[in-house]
Amino acid sequence: MRDWLKGEPLVIERGKGAVLWDVHGREYIDANSSIWTNLHGHNHPKVNAAIRRQLGRVAHTSALGLANEPASLLGQALVQLANPRTGLPKRQSRLAKVFYSDDGSTAVEVALKLAYEFACRTGRARKPRFLSLDGAYHGDTVGAVSAGHIDLFHKAYSGMLFKTDKVMSPYCYRCPFNKAKPERGDARDTRKCNFECVDKVEQQFAARKKRGVNYAALLVEPGIQGPAGMIAQPKGWLGRVAEISRVHGTQLIADEVMTGLGRAADQLFASHDEGVQPDFLCVAKGLTGGYLPMAATLTTQEVFDAFLGDYSELKTFFHGHSYTGNQLGSAASLASIGLLNTAATRRKKLAANLRSESKRLWMLPQVGDIRQAGCVLAVELVRDWQTREPFELIERAGIRVCDALAKRGVLTRPVGNVIVIMPPYCTTQRQVKKIFSALHNAIDETLTKNG
Amino acid sequence: MRDWLKGEPLVIERGKGAVLWDVHGREYIDANSSIWTNLHGHNHPKVNAAIRRQLGRVAHTSALGLANEPASLLGQALVQLANPRTGLPKRQSRLAKVFYSDDGSTAVEVALKLAYEFACRTGRARKPRFLSLDGAYHGDTVGAVSAGHIDLFHKAYSGMLFKTDKVMSPYCYRCPFNKAKPERGDARDTRKCNFECVDKVEQQFAARKKRGVNYAALLVEPGIQGPAGMIAQPKGWLGRVAEISRVHGTQLIADEVMTGLGRAADQLFASHDEGVQPDFLCVAKGLTGGYLPMAATLTTQEVFDAFLGDYSELKTFFHGHSYTGNQLGSAASLASIGLLNTAATRRKKLAANLRSESKRLWMLPQVGDIRQAGCVLAVELVRDWQTREPFELIERAGIRVCDALAKRGVLTRPVGNVIVIMPPYCTTQRQVKKIFSALHNAIDETLTKNG
Repeated sequence: MRDWLKGEPLVIERGKGAVLWDVHGREYIDANSSIWTNLHGHNHPKVNAAIRRQLGRVAHTSALGLANEPASLLGQALVQLANPRTGLPKRQSRLAKVFYSDDGSTAVEVALKLAYEFACRTGRARKPRFLSLDGAYHGDTVGAVSAGHIDLFHKAYSGMLFKTDKVMSPYCYRCPFNKAKPERGDARDTRKCNFECVDKVEQQFAARKKRGVNYAALLVEPGIQGPAGMIAQPKGWLGRVAEISRVHGTQLIADEVMTGLGRAADQLFASHDEGVQPDFLCVAKGLTGGYLPMAATLTTQEVFDAFLGDYSELKTFFHGHSYTGNQLGSAASLASIGLLNTAATRRKKLAANLRSESKRLWMLPQVGDIRQAGCVLAVELVRDWQTREPFELIERAGIRVCDALAKRGVLTRPVGNVIVIMPPYCTTQRQVKKIFSALHNAIDETLTKNG
Repeated sequence: MRDWLKGEPLVIERGKGAVLWDVHGREYIDANSSIWTNLHGHNHPKVNAAIRRQLGRVAHTSALGLANEPASLLGQALVQLANPRTGLPKRQSRLAKVFYSDDGSTAVEVALKLAYEFACRTGRARKPRFLSLDGAYHGDTVGAVSAGHIDLFHKAYSGMLFKTDKVMSPYCYRCPFNKAKPERGDARDTRKCNFECVDKVEQQFAARKKRGVNYAALLVEPGIQGPAGMIAQPKGWLGRVAEISRVHGTQLIADEVMTGLGRAADQLFASHDEGVQPDFLCVAKGLTGGYLPMAATLTTQEVFDAFLGDYSELKTFFHGHSYTGNQLGSAASLASIGLLNTAATRRKKLAANLRSESKRLWMLPQVGDIRQAGCVLAVELVRDWQTREPFELIERAGIRVCDALAKRGVLTRPVGNVIVIMPPYCTTQRQVKKIFSALHNAIDETLTKNG
C-alpha cells in the first residue's frame, strides 16, 4: 500500500479491442484481459449493442419470485455450453441447473454450501469436509478463503475460517518427484515421474476413509491453477483425480472462474479437455465478456432434487443476492457467448501465437519455465534457470518486470515471480509479438542486466 | 422449490418509473423496489444516459494496480455523502476510505476481515469475536452468514460458520420488557419500557470484558433490521448502543445495504439520523440506483493506516474481486447519487404518503403492527391484533397475501409474516394509494374472510 501511494496511479480512460488508453492518451495492450475477465476485447459493438438494447427495456428486476427473459435464456445457453455432445463419458451426469450470483467468490460459496448440505442430506458424509489443492485459490470471502490454501491469505483470518484439507498440486517445474533436470521447455513436457501427485490424492481419500468419513467435495481449478502461480496441470492429471473422487462418492467442484469460456483449454471448459464433467461448475470473470460482474454455479439435477420439497419441509437453499440474474449482465453474457463460436478460430490462432512468440524468452537465463494452457501463458522467473533458484518475495521480481512492461505499453500483473500473459481473444499476431518483445526487454533490463 | 415449480413464473420484460410490465403486457407497481434496490425508478433517463456514455469509453478495466475516473469520482462522492457537515458529534472519526466489491455480502465480508485484522494488529482484541443482533442478516456468504443470527440460515451450515455472539434486538412489538397493551399504532410510539434492550447490550460487553477480552466489532443494521422481520428501532436505541460500543473500544460496522442512500431515514444514512458515525459503513443494493451489482465498504483513515506498510511487511489487505470499481456500475452510481438531491423532496412526500395511506390497514384485525422507517413500511400480520398471536410459518400468511397482491398489480415479497412496502422514490401518491388499497383487499380476502 505504501508503495502504491508513492507512485502516480495509471488511470485508464477508454478501450477498444485489446488496447487501453490512459487519461494522458498513452496506449497499452491489455495483456491480462483486465485481470482475466475480458474475452473478445473492449468496446465490442455486439456486447455494447446488447447492453444498450436491454437498457431500453429494464436494467434490473429481482429474481426472487420473479423471472426475466435474458437470465432465462442465459441459463439455457450455459447448460448447453456445459454439456458438449461429444467427449464426455456417458456415465457422467449432466449439468442441468444454473444458480446466479455476482462474482467468483460467491459462485464458489454457492457450490460449497450446496455440496455441504447435499452431503449431509444424502448421508454421504457427516460433518462434511472439503479437499482442495496446495496453493488453491477460490476467492476472498470467508468460505472461499477457507477452501483455498494460500498461506498469505490464511494467516490473518485463521480465526474466521473453517478447516479444509489440502493435497499436493501437480507443479511439475518444482515437483520433488520429477527427476528431470531443468531444460529449455515446459517442465510438463520433459517430466520424469510416475504421477506420484495423483497417488497423493488417492492416499488422502484413503486416509479420510479410514476414519470412517468422506469428503463432501474436492475442489479444483481445472487445467491451470491461477494465483498458486499459474500451475498448468500435466495432461491426464485431472482425469485421474476426478476418477478417484468419483469412486469415493465425493462431489467434484470445478472452479472455472479463470479457465472457463475458452480461456485455458481447447474446449470451452478445461474440465472437458480431460473428459471430466464436474458436479459443480463455477463460472464468472469472462461470463459477461469482461463487461459486468456476474457469476453462475451450474450443478446436476441430483443436487437440485435434494433441495426440492414442500414449503413446510424447509429444504430451500437459502442463498440469494439482490442482483441475481441481473438483466444487463445477462444481456452482455448472451452477446459474449454468441461470439464464442466465431472466436474459436481466433482462440486457436492466439494460442499458437502465444506459443511461438514466447519462444524467444528461453534465451533469457532468468526464465525458468514457460507453461501454457490455451490462451493463458505463464513465465516463471528464476535467479538462474539451471538451478531453478527462485527470487525472494522481497525482491519483487515479478512486480518490477511488470512495471518495466507497463513503460513499454503492455499491462499485466504478476503472480509472485510468475508473469501472466492472457490477452483477449481478438489480440492480433502483431500485438502478441509486441507483448513478447516488450517482455523480453523488460526481463532483460530488470533482471539480467541489473540483477 | 416444489411450490415454485408448480406455478407459472411471472416474467418481467420492461419497466418505467415505479411500474413493471410482464411478457403478457400486465402492469405492476414495483412495491419493493426490485428487492430493495431501485431508488429513482426503472429506465431513468439520467442513469441510462450515464451507462450509455461510459459504455462508449470502456465497460470495465481492472482496479488491481490501475485506476479509473468513474470509480475515483464515486469514491469521492461517497466520502462526501458519508460525512455530512452537521449532525454528527465532532469526536467521531471521518469515513475517509472506500473499498469496492460486488454485493452486500462482500461489502460486509470486507468490513469483517478489516475489523478482525485491525483488532489483532492494534492489540484491541486477541482472537477477536463479533457481536450482532438477534435476527441479524448481513448476507449469504459464509462470513456474512456467520455474522448473522437467523436460525433457518444457520442450522444447515453450522460446520462452516465461525462463532459470533448475539444480543437482544429492539423489537418493541414483541418485546418482553414492553408493558404496553396492543394498540392501533406503531408499537414503538406506545412502548412502556426502560430501554432494557440497551442494558442487554451493555451486559453483553461487560460479560465479554470479564473474560479479559473485547469484541472486534459490533454489527448493526441501522434504523431498521431487514430480514429479521423489518424491525424498526425506537428513537435513541442506536445512539445509545453505538456509545456503549465506542466506550469499550469496539468498532461499529453499520450494514446500510438496505437502509442507505435515503431509503430508511431522513438523512441519507440511517446511522446519521441517530447522530452516529460508524467505523465501517457498508453500501450496496441502491448504490447503482438499482441498475447493476456494486458495493462499497467505507472506513476510517485509522483502519486504512493499519494496513499501510512496505511491501516486505505484507500488511496488505488481501481482498479483491475482479470487477472492483467497475466503470459501468460506477457511472450508474454517480448518476444515481446525482439524483439524490432532487429526490429529497420526493422522499419526504413518499414517506408521508406511505404513512397516511397505510392508516386504512388498522381497521383489519389481522394487522398487528405497522412500522415505518423513512421510505420503508412494514405490516406485521397476526391472527388477532388483540392477542398479537402470530401465524405459523406453515400457513404462509405473508406469501399468500403477496400472491393476492400480485393479482391486483402490486409486486412485493414478505419477510415471514411481515409485508414489506418499499417502492422507488418516484412513486406517486396515486400509486401509493393503489398499493395500500390492494394490500387492504389482499389481507381482507386472504386472512380475514378465508381465515
